[in-house]
Amino acid sequence: MKKLNVGILGPGTVGGGAYEILTKNKDVIEKRTGVSVEVFKLLTRRPRPEFPAELLTDDPDDILNNPDVNVVVETMGGIQPATSFMLQAMKNGKHVVTANKAAVAANYEELTGAALENEVKFLFEASVGGGIPVLTAIQNALSGNNFLEVMGIVNGTTNYILTKMTEDGADYKDVLKDAQAKGFAEADPTADVEGIDAANKLCILTALLFDKYIAPSDIPTTGISQITGTDIAAAAEEGCKIKLIAHATLKDGQVSCSVAPEKIPNSHPLAGVSNEFNAVYITGDMVGEVMFYGKGAGALPTGSAIVGDIISIAKEIK
Amino acid sequence: MKKLNVGILGPGTVGGGAYEILTKNKDVIEKRTGVSVEVFKLLTRRPRPEFPAELLTDDPDDILNNPDVNVVVETMGGIQPATSFMLQAMKNGKHVVTANKAAVAANYEELTGAALENEVKFLFEASVGGGIPVLTAIQNALSGNNFLEVMGIVNGTTNYILTKMTEDGADYKDVLKDAQAKGFAEADPTADVEGIDAANKLCILTALLFDKYIAPSDIPTTGISQITGTDIAAAAEEGCKIKLIAHATLKDGQVSCSVAPEKIPNSHPLAGVSNEFNAVYITGDMVGEVMFYGKGAGALPTGSAIVGDIISIAKEIK
Repeated sequence: MKKLNVGILGPGTVGGGAYEILTKNKDVIEKRTGVSVEVFKLLTRRPRPEFPAELLTDDPDDILNNPDVNVVVETMGGIQPATSFMLQAMKNGKHVVTANKAAVAANYEELTGAALENEVKFLFEASVGGGIPVLTAIQNALSGNNFLEVMGIVNGTTNYILTKMTEDGADYKDVLKDAQAKGFAEADPTADVEGIDAANKLCILTALLFDKYIAPSDIPTTGISQITGTDIAAAAEEGCKIKLIAHATLKDGQVSCSVAPEKIPNSHPLAGVSNEFNAVYITGDMVGEVMFYGKGAGALPTGSAIVGDIISIAKEIK
Repeated sequence: MKKLNVGILGPGTVGGGAYEILTKNKDVIEKRTGVSVEVFKLLTRRPRPEFPAELLTDDPDDILNNPDVNVVVETMGGIQPATSFMLQAMKNGKHVVTANKAAVAANYEELTGAALENEVKFLFEASVGGGIPVLTAIQNALSGNNFLEVMGIVNGTTNYILTKMTEDGADYKDVLKDAQAKGFAEADPTADVEGIDAANKLCILTALLFDKYIAPSDIPTTGISQITGTDIAAAAEEGCKIKLIAHATLKDGQVSCSVAPEKIPNSHPLAGVSNEFNAVYITGDMVGEVMFYGKGAGALPTGSAIVGDIISIAKEIK
């Protein structure tokens, strides 16, 4: 049986989730791909007693320059050194799978270009919508379509806050504190509540849907920190919910995009997407409207997307 | 540039939709696959002046035994002769793409076995949920999961009828007549309203999710023809909507399945799936809950799924 050796850069929450799935579901993955997928090395600077000691290394070259590693999973987060590590891995003929939306959005063209040049796969399903298989669908099953529009609820923290403000009539600041206490918001919530995370994801969606790269910093972005209970009540009067929408539209050959709170009619499928769930609503010229819904974050959902990408590589080498 | 010649058996509504997409979006398909996908022959017994005359034939062998045809699209409907034609095409080394849920459900093991034996692709994304790319997701991006449950609204006719009964407080018989007038229900609606169509689709979902074939006739099936306005009002009192659910669950290694009207709480994502829309809600051990939503029928949505399958074949031959 063919073997595929995986090195994970940064086995934290998401990388640890991928490790857990590759380990627990090893048999089913082997059965479905005909390939034995093995975790070969984990790059971490901190002691990680939950992993087998022989897998741990603090030297990136043990993965990036190791001829026995076939696939590099990058779940370190941050733009650097993640981007350099991914480029080095591809240069060395390794396939790369990442969940890192900031790095993919910042260096989309360089990273996808390196994959083409080195004839390796560069896959990043986990970078948008966590476990929701939306990027794969855009690039495969839906790819007979010209895409016209995408509207995404792609940030769980802000969707959780807006849901609680809507359901409980609570204030933004109180809900944010509660979300931080429950682990749905970070201590510094800026990237989430100001829409920066959503802009990174919209950059990736726009690149895939419209074959057009728009840097996150060029996407007009408004977060939810100025939304008040009065705004939400006024929207409810109109039969709407306020949602933070990553929105891109193709019109007359031009792509326009924004991240901003929008009033979504209660009858729209996106209005029913609550709490920390994510959804991406896409319009194609042939398929019409399709929506993908699921958990946009978390170790195992995001790990599921990473493992899906690894499986597609395994099927190809088979 | 490599070329892929497609023969379509039965260019009616769905096959005609596939033809339209392959023709109108030829450029974008070529750009995304690097392969020139051409419609080569159309098998039809009736005169079809809307298609180029040189493509038409009434002899199945012009497609099935033609060495120039690489992919056979089967959109004739019915179990036979569709199944025999698909088997013959695979025996002759042709990939097969179909939208025919009745044929796939009835002869799942024979058809998938023939594909393995003849080393060709047998793809049927269009057979469940029209344009919604759910089967591809199960087999690829989500395939690191052990699947636990599926709940599908997979029949547009019954969902349209139940939605109108719920929204307008109308009677089953009046809504059915209205649906027939609008083209959402057939003159003989039995296969839809009695759940037979949904059972075919559940058979296919169950085979892919749980690697277990359960014949449609072995799936306990109850339709919606006995649902009354009183039932719907009683469900509403409980905060629920009645939906026809194709439901399969894995418990203690056993798959149990049914097609039946179920009370779905208004807070559940499936409760918001209205009118002729379809949705499939899947639980995996790692990804948790994911839902796929879109148009479950119609020429172009279903055609989009067929073209997605053809594109995946094109990418492979590339």
